[in-house]
Amino acid sequence: MPSFLQTTTRTWSEVEQMLASGDVQGKLAKDDLPTPALCVDLDALEGNIQKMASYAHEKGRALRPHGKSHKCSEIARLTLQAGAVGACSAKLSEAEAFAASGIESILVTTPMVGRHRIERAVRLAGRIADLILVLDHAENADDLNAAAAAAKIQLTVALDLNVTDRTGVAPGPDAVALAEHVARLPHLMLKGIQAYAGHSSHVIGFAERTASSHEAMAPAIATRRALEAKGIPCSWLSGASTGTYNIDGEMDGVTELQPGSYLFMDLDYDCIGSATGDRFDDFANSLTVLSTVYSMPGRDQAILDAGLKAFATDKPFPPVVKGLEGTSYSFAGDEHGRLDVRRASLPVALGDRLELVIPHCDPTVNLYDRIFATRGDQVEAVWRIDARGMSA
Amino acid sequence: MPSFLQTTTRTWSEVEQMLASGDVQGKLAKDDLPTPALCVDLDALEGNIQKMASYAHEKGRALRPHGKSHKCSEIARLTLQAGAVGACSAKLSEAEAFAASGIESILVTTPMVGRHRIERAVRLAGRIADLILVLDHAENADDLNAAAAAAKIQLTVALDLNVTDRTGVAPGPDAVALAEHVARLPHLMLKGIQAYAGHSSHVIGFAERTASSHEAMAPAIATRRALEAKGIPCSWLSGASTGTYNIDGEMDGVTELQPGSYLFMDLDYDCIGSATGDRFDDFANSLTVLSTVYSMPGRDQAILDAGLKAFATDKPFPPVVKGLEGTSYSFAGDEHGRLDVRRASLPVALGDRLELVIPHCDPTVNLYDRIFATRGDQVEAVWRIDARGMSA
Repeated sequence: MPSFLQTTTRTWSEVEQMLASGDVQGKLAKDDLPTPALCVDLDALEGNIQKMASYAHEKGRALRPHGKSHKCSEIARLTLQAGAVGACSAKLSEAEAFAASGIESILVTTPMVGRHRIERAVRLAGRIADLILVLDHAENADDLNAAAAAAKIQLTVALDLNVTDRTGVAPGPDAVALAEHVARLPHLMLKGIQAYAGHSSHVIGFAERTASSHEAMAPAIATRRALEAKGIPCSWLSGASTGTYNIDGEMDGVTELQPGSYLFMDLDYDCIGSATGDRFDDFANSLTVLSTVYSMPGRDQAILDAGLKAFATDKPFPPVVKGLEGTSYSFAGDEHGRLDVRRASLPVALGDRLELVIPHCDPTVNLYDRIFATRGDQVEAVWRIDARGMSA
Repeated sequence: MPSFLQTTTRTWSEVEQMLASGDVQGKLAKDDLPTPALCVDLDALEGNIQKMASYAHEKGRALRPHGKSHKCSEIARLTLQAGAVGACSAKLSEAEAFAASGIESILVTTPMVGRHRIERAVRLAGRIADLILVLDHAENADDLNAAAAAAKIQLTVALDLNVTDRTGVAPGPDAVALAEHVARLPHLMLKGIQAYAGHSSHVIGFAERTASSHEAMAPAIATRRALEAKGIPCSWLSGASTGTYNIDGEMDGVTELQPGSYLFMDLDYDCIGSATGDRFDDFANSLTVLSTVYSMPGRDQAILDAGLKAFATDKPFPPVVKGLEGTSYSFAGDEHGRLDVRRASLPVALGDRLELVIPHCDPTVNLYDRIFATRGDQVEAVWRIDARGMSA
């Protein structure tokens, strides 16, 4: 009968040394890892990278995967090797971390407001080949222009268009007016439009999602056309999420896709449905948390060493154990998870190591300092999540 | 009229250098900090530390504040200076971080199950003056004993008693049998009992909370007496949370208190009621997240730079802005918060810096690499949250 027993033959000192040196290939097994451990399955990750890259290539769209999902320069590099044009980062400090690791083309998808953010952004623009900033207020454009002038550089900027009731200038006349304003500022170079319809990404049902994304993106595409009609160059329109990659990627006028979660997938995305079925299985789940049963207070439940500090909890459904049917996990505090094992398909015992699929990948990755890149039972690499915690 | 405008006179380069060197006192203002920033108000923190220390001293109980709340050796040190006997840590890697910073007495409050955890625990026991481990299974006691024998040391252990339907051996005969088993193992030294009634800590209403904690702790105290009646020394019984410090601290038989959240407080604890009123105000709220308004897509809402990656989301209520009545925050994705400002008591504008009180302190602290220790408008110190992410 299969079991979840740890069978490591390594001492902890050996494991610790390998983790410190990073020299793990051919030596370190998943079974050797301290838990809770964030793991990515390389076969699945590589398949996901390849599939999205092929799709974008086939459709003639640029692909700029969003680094807020992985926060890991090593993974950004893998997407670049597969043809991505660069990376997105949500925040400036995240972009600085990617830049420090040699990523040369970065779109920062949130606005640079405040004296220090602008100073940092200008400095970063001087350090990498291609930095794209977004803006949604005229006074912010003025501030960026003044800082760029003082630094004697040009900043590449795009309009952040509000297509999801969050940040951004309203599509249509407001956006055109802002673009005209930007076009008059000598130290800003307007690249185009960012239109990220976050609310569409998780609409359940492909037809419904398609309708939602079309409704959100049509004003963005119309704004792009309106700018071009006014003689304001706007050759770039970046949008799309994992949920809408093959919706926005079919739209005339969208030039760049910025999905992130497709690298890992999670329970949240699993249930939105695909173009062909109820389950969104365009990409494979690659991300798990490995956990240990460290108490069995009775036969009914197993207490795991992974709780609120091991998983983001913003989704209304809990992690799910891989390869073990009939169990249900519930959070049992900061440090503990409770697994109801009364109807478990396999026996669960003290010390067993279970692997859990993650409700929401992005904020969960942000809890860990490193990700273990595994193939089968082996650990091929340990990647530092170098932009973890970089929310500023 | 008061405003939330940033008025810093520092350049980012100056701030960055101060943050890197840690030399901030008398130079760095709260207004200079990059956001989102985790801040602790030193007047409030010091008051909380002193109040709990005085209570424990007056009642003749040892105080061992729980480091899973702060994950910061500097804060552990402040509690030690005020008379705490040591620190608790939830996990072994957390204890290793505290030990590396010179904390010499640590209780690890979760069991050490698995070959590597035991090897690490034995090593840690050899590195600090006083390490206390907990256990709840006989086979785990055997494993710990064997590892201690191999290392030619004695391990100090306590029974983890299940008084909250989580980890632990059942109070009464099961616990006595386990204690007898441990007493026969030559390399384990039984110190006593850990009984942490987590479910009691947030019971609303002081009378109800008192009843809940008495019901949970009575079997623990009875187990202690049963052990002593059998001639098994059990001079130590550690329990209590912030919510039950002045309930468990009055119980005959409880010798040590292990609260953590009292250092910071949060919205969750605010509403449980105190011995004298509806609001639990025994301790002051010291912890906030400083955030910047970085988009105003219309007059009704302000978009903040603090979202799912800036606050733990396990509680059903959102962060609350300090000093600004009539607003409500909602999460707007990984990187954004949405503040409804239609009925705000003060005008809110692009670039404003707002301070938010936190729903749940422990898992929020775990999102940040450093905590800014402030007094009034000034930053007195930058403390590394050196056990952040240490969940293994």
